[in-house]
Amino acid sequence: MMTADYIAIQTSDSNSPESINFLNLIRSAHRTPRQDSPEAWELTSFVDGAGRFNLVHIGYWRDPNKHAAWILGAPLGKWFTSLDARHANFGAWRETIQVPVDRLETIVSKEGWSFGLANCPMIEMRLTTTNGYFGAARDRFPLSAIDRLEAPSPHRRRATPALSLGRRLRAECGHNTAVIRSGQHWASSLGEQLVDYESSLQPKLMAGMDHLSRNQETEGVLSLRVMTNHDLETFASVQQTSVLAYFNSLEPLEKWAESHATHAAIYEHAIDKQREFGADRQVVTWHEVFIVTRNSNFEYVNCHADTGILPFAQTLMAVDDAN
Amino acid sequence: MMTADYIAIQTSDSNSPESINFLNLIRSAHRTPRQDSPEAWELTSFVDGAGRFNLVHIGYWRDPNKHAAWILGAPLGKWFTSLDARHANFGAWRETIQVPVDRLETIVSKEGWSFGLANCPMIEMRLTTTNGYFGAARDRFPLSAIDRLEAPSPHRRRATPALSLGRRLRAECGHNTAVIRSGQHWASSLGEQLVDYESSLQPKLMAGMDHLSRNQETEGVLSLRVMTNHDLETFASVQQTSVLAYFNSLEPLEKWAESHATHAAIYEHAIDKQREFGADRQVVTWHEVFIVTRNSNFEYVNCHADTGILPFAQTLMAVDDAN
Repeated sequence: MMTADYIAIQTSDSNSPESINFLNLIRSAHRTPRQDSPEAWELTSFVDGAGRFNLVHIGYWRDPNKHAAWILGAPLGKWFTSLDARHANFGAWRETIQVPVDRLETIVSKEGWSFGLANCPMIEMRLTTTNGYFGAARDRFPLSAIDRLEAPSPHRRRATPALSLGRRLRAECGHNTAVIRSGQHWASSLGEQLVDYESSLQPKLMAGMDHLSRNQETEGVLSLRVMTNHDLETFASVQQTSVLAYFNSLEPLEKWAESHATHAAIYEHAIDKQREFGADRQVVTWHEVFIVTRNSNFEYVNCHADTGILPFAQTLMAVDDAN
Repeated sequence: MMTADYIAIQTSDSNSPESINFLNLIRSAHRTPRQDSPEAWELTSFVDGAGRFNLVHIGYWRDPNKHAAWILGAPLGKWFTSLDARHANFGAWRETIQVPVDRLETIVSKEGWSFGLANCPMIEMRLTTTNGYFGAARDRFPLSAIDRLEAPSPHRRRATPALSLGRRLRAECGHNTAVIRSGQHWASSLGEQLVDYESSLQPKLMAGMDHLSRNQETEGVLSLRVMTNHDLETFASVQQTSVLAYFNSLEPLEKWAESHATHAAIYEHAIDKQREFGADRQVVTWHEVFIVTRNSNFEYVNCHADTGILPFAQTLMAVDDAN
C-alpha cells in the first residue's frame, strides 16, 4: 500500500496567525524526525476558488504501518485529529490516498529526477518506452492489464452545498476515482528556457486548468487545485508547481488529454521543447496517478462547502454528530 | 481486490414480516442473476447478544468493479441504500471487507471442498504444508513476508454506547484489523462422527466463542457472531455454521489460538479426529482471514448499539445528519 496524505489548513492568508502556527508545527515536526515520519514530504500552498489560502503538508509513505502510526502519534496527525470544528477560527482538511502498487503510475520527463511518492527512499525510476502516445498512462498501471478501471457511477454535484462550517465532515468518493498530481519544476531553467516556460508553457497549462475548473461536471472533475511548492527549510515559495486533481475515473482524464484543445496546446509545446532541447531541457515535468477504491479518507474541519471533494462527494458523514 | 459484503436485517425473529420481506428480496434477486451478481453467496442467521434475530446475505466477488456496480444497481444494494433510518421498524447493517489478495488467506480441512470466498469460480484450492503449527495462518498471508501486520492502536470499548437507533451510522476500524470467518460443515457426517461433532467438538467450539465474547476487551475482539447457514433454495437452516469475528489485529487471534485452553481443546480434538479418520473424516472445517486497512465500510441503519463493531469503532459518523 502506497500512501499520500495531504494535511492542510485553510485561512485568510499566508500571514494569518493560524498559517504561522501551522508552519511552526511542521518545522518542529521535521526537526525531530520519528521512525514513522513520512519518507518524503512537501509543503505547498494555493488560494482556492473561494479566495481562501490553503497551506498543505504532503507526506508520502511506502509503509502503511508507519503512516498509521504517524497519524496517531506524531504532532501533525494529533493536531488534526484533536481540532474542535465548532470553535476553530480556521478550516483544516485531510485527504489520504492509499493504494496497492498496481493502482498507481508515475513518470518524469528527465532522467535523474524524481518527485512526489518517487522521492521516497528505495524507489527507483527506470527508463520507459510506455509513453508518448494516448493511452500510455493507462498502460503504465499494472492493474490495467486485467481491469478497465471504470467507475460504476458518476460523481454528481450535490443539489445543495454541504453544511460544512463548524463541523467535521467525512466525504466518500466512489470506486476507481482517479487522483492525479501533475508537476512542473522550472527552478533550474535559465534564459531562453525560463522565458519559454513562464511566457508560453505555463500560460497554456493554466488555460487547461482553468477550462477543467470551469467545467467540472462535463469534464468529470471533482476537485482541482494548482499548488505552489515551498522550500522545506525557508518555507519560501519556489519555481515549482503541481496540480492536484480528482477525476471521476481515469477515462475523463484521458478524454481531456486526448481531445481537448487546451491539453493539445500543453502537450505539443512540451514535446516540441523536449525535441528542441533534448537532454539539455531544464524544465522538468512529472505526474503521479492513483486509482483509489471507494473510501471515506477525505475529512474537512470547518471548511467552506467548496473545499476538496465536498461538492461532489457520493456520501457525506458528520463525525462530531455521531459521538 | 477480493470482496466479502455482508448485508443483514435485524428484527425480532425469523417470522417477522421484515425477515420474510428480506428473504423474498434475496429470492427474487438470485432468480434473475445479473452480470455483476456475487460470484458466490450464502445466507446465514444468528441471534445476537441483545436477543435480536439477524438474517445475513453474504456476497463474494473477485472483481471489485462488479461489486461496486451491484451495490449501486442490484435490488439488495439499492434496498439497503434507500432505507430511512428514522422510520424503519427494523435494523439493517452492511459490512464490506475488501482487500488486495496478499492480505487474505483461506484453508479447508478436506480436499475437494471449498467455502466462502473460495467458492467463487476460478479459485483453486491447493494442498499446502503451511499448516499444523502455531503461526501458520500468518505465514499463509503473502504480505507477512514483508509486513508484521501490526495494528497501530487498540480498539477500545467506547465510553458511552453509540446513539444508533433511528440513525444511519458509519463505523471505522483501524489499520490491520483482522476479520476471520471460521466455518464448520457437518451435514455429511453420520453415526459416530456426527455424534462426536455435536456432542464433543461443537460444545468445545462454543465454549471458545463464549470465552471470546465475554472477554472482548482483553482478547482484542471487536465483534463475534456465531452464524448458522441456510439452504439457498429452501432457506431452511442446515448443519453448517461459521463464526464471523473481528480482532484488533492478527496478533490477539494468534495469541488466543496459541495459549488459551478453550482453543487448545478445539484444536486438539480436531487434530485427533483428523488422525483417527483421515480422508474419511466427514466433518469439514475451514476459515478465511482478511487483514483490512483503515476503512469506514461498516454501516448500521437503526441498529442497537451493540451491533457489529459499533461498540469498538475508532470513529463513528452519522450519514443522515451530514446531508
